Amino acid sequence: MSVPNDKIYFSPDLSKRERACFETGIKLGALYHILSGLPIRNDETIISAIEKGIESAISCQPFVKSVKIHFDRDTISGTKESAYDYDEINGKMIQAELNIEYESIHTVAKVQWVDQLEYPLMFIEKIYEK
Amino acid sequence: MSVPNDKIYFSPDLSKRERACFETGIKLGALYHILSGLPIRNDETIISAIEKGIESAISCQPFVKSVKIHFDRDTISGTKESAYDYDEINGKMIQAELNIEYESIHTVAKVQWVDQLEYPLMFIEKIYEK
Amino acid sequence: MSVPNDKIYFSPDLSKRERACFETGIKLGALYHILSGLPIRNDETIISAIEKGIESAISCQPFVKSVKIHFDRDTISGTKESAYDYDEINGKMIQAELNIEYESIHTVAKVQWVDQLEYPLMFIEKIYEK
Amino acid sequence: MSVPNDKIYFSPDLSKRERACFETGIKLGALYHILSGLPIRNDETIISAIEKGIESAISCQPFVKSVKIHFDRDTISGTKESAYDYDEINGKMIQAELNIEYESIHTVAKVQWVDQLEYPLMFIEKIYEK
Repeated sequence: MSVPNDKIYFSPDLSKRERACFETGIKLGALYHILSGLPIRNDETIISAIEKGIESAISCQPFVKSVKIHFDRDTISGTKESAYDYDEINGKMIQAELNIEYESIHTVAKVQWVDQLEYPLMFIEKIYEK
Repeated sequence: MSVPNDKIYFSPDLSKRERACFETGIKLGALYHILSGLPIRNDETIISAIEKGIESAISCQPFVKSVKIHFDRDTISGTKESAYDYDEINGKMIQAELNIEYESIHTVAKVQWVDQLEYPLMFIEKIYEK
Repeated sequence: MSVPNDKIYFSPDLSKRERACFETGIKLGALYHILSGLPIRNDETIISAIEKGIESAISCQPFVKSVKIHFDRDTISGTKESAYDYDEINGKMIQAELNIEYESIHTVAKVQWVDQLEYPLMFIEKIYEK
Repeated sequence: MSVPNDKIYFSPDLSKRERACFETGIKLGALYHILSGLPIRNDETIISAIEKGIESAISCQPFVKSVKIHFDRDTISGTKESAYDYDEINGKMIQAELNIEYESIHTVAKVQWVDQLEYPLMFIEKIYEK
């Protein structure tokens, strides 16, 4: 896959690793805001279809090697016994792992709810050259 | 599926048919704004996963009997030959059919791009009691 | 403001009132899904700018006579004392009033959190001809 | 503003500069996907209210020092002469500048449409320690 000549727009100071971290952030920011607020309920077929659908969308973005979304089933309510008995995707549900490859740099990054921070933390777990 | 006692909030003037039309509009408005801007490219596996994912999300909403999303393949670019060679979902791509059932009223509604209007029109094609 | 010739797409059975209810639903569905997940914090300048910004966006949609968004301040946390101390817009915060005018039909509709239903209910409070 | 103890989640290999680039990417990814698809039209009051509204939302996110959104007026159509005469925000309209401060590292980053790439490029224009 060729990379367009976009480097003239970036600071010449930016290392390949720094660029890879930037690209990683873009995808996690997009992923989270695409997911937030989507209707969902505790039905395995529905949950896994939403996971695969948004994985597929994110996989189109630049430098995405792979992406895996997993909603924490324990946090999803809604059995559709009444019309209003469903849920909306929020930060407590979202778990995702993203692999970015920018030139020779690889990152493994995640978003997951962290109880101590009460926050859906996005973080880079690994970064390496290959 | 039971319907919660929500009628006290609605105008007593509102007929069952009018309520069904309101509920139909809510789902199409949500569907369209959930889809807009999602990354996509011209790959059948990716396209159909996004279709199924958002169908699954919308199906959780109240009074949705069924929903079918279809992206017009001819309008989707992107073969991922370069990093930036993908597309974003917009009104020219989106075709959807929604079936709402509110009490005894059924609607069949659609969203599709209408060239003459240059607009992604949402409309109720059929409404009937059963 | 002229109305495009869109009636050929709609069921000939659909009354003006039913069409007005459909249009009302579209806007509330869009409004809610646009708002869901937006970052926010308990700062009056920030809250009112987000309210006005999304009101302005929704006001562009067809047949919207006016729209007023109000976030329930009591439900918004976040004073930015630490980096992660902010909130996200959700159904408990969102209160909105929408006025739709379709031909001679006017609707007044709302979305607001209803404790008894544990749900951000969208409803048509008034509908009249003028 | 205190920074929570989130470092245990990040790779110990990650430099402060790399972390700052990651945080910069998150905000631009979120900003872009929040804006995409919002209704808009060529009216200065409406345009500037949407700009300020989403600036306010993004300003709540961690490590954002400032953010400025500017829609390219020349690309926005819609004068509301008919019901369907408005536009939707897309990558050709969006121009934004973001300033991130992570510990002693500052970044200046942008998103803007680049004709040569036919793409709404996100890039880090400056990165420095202070």
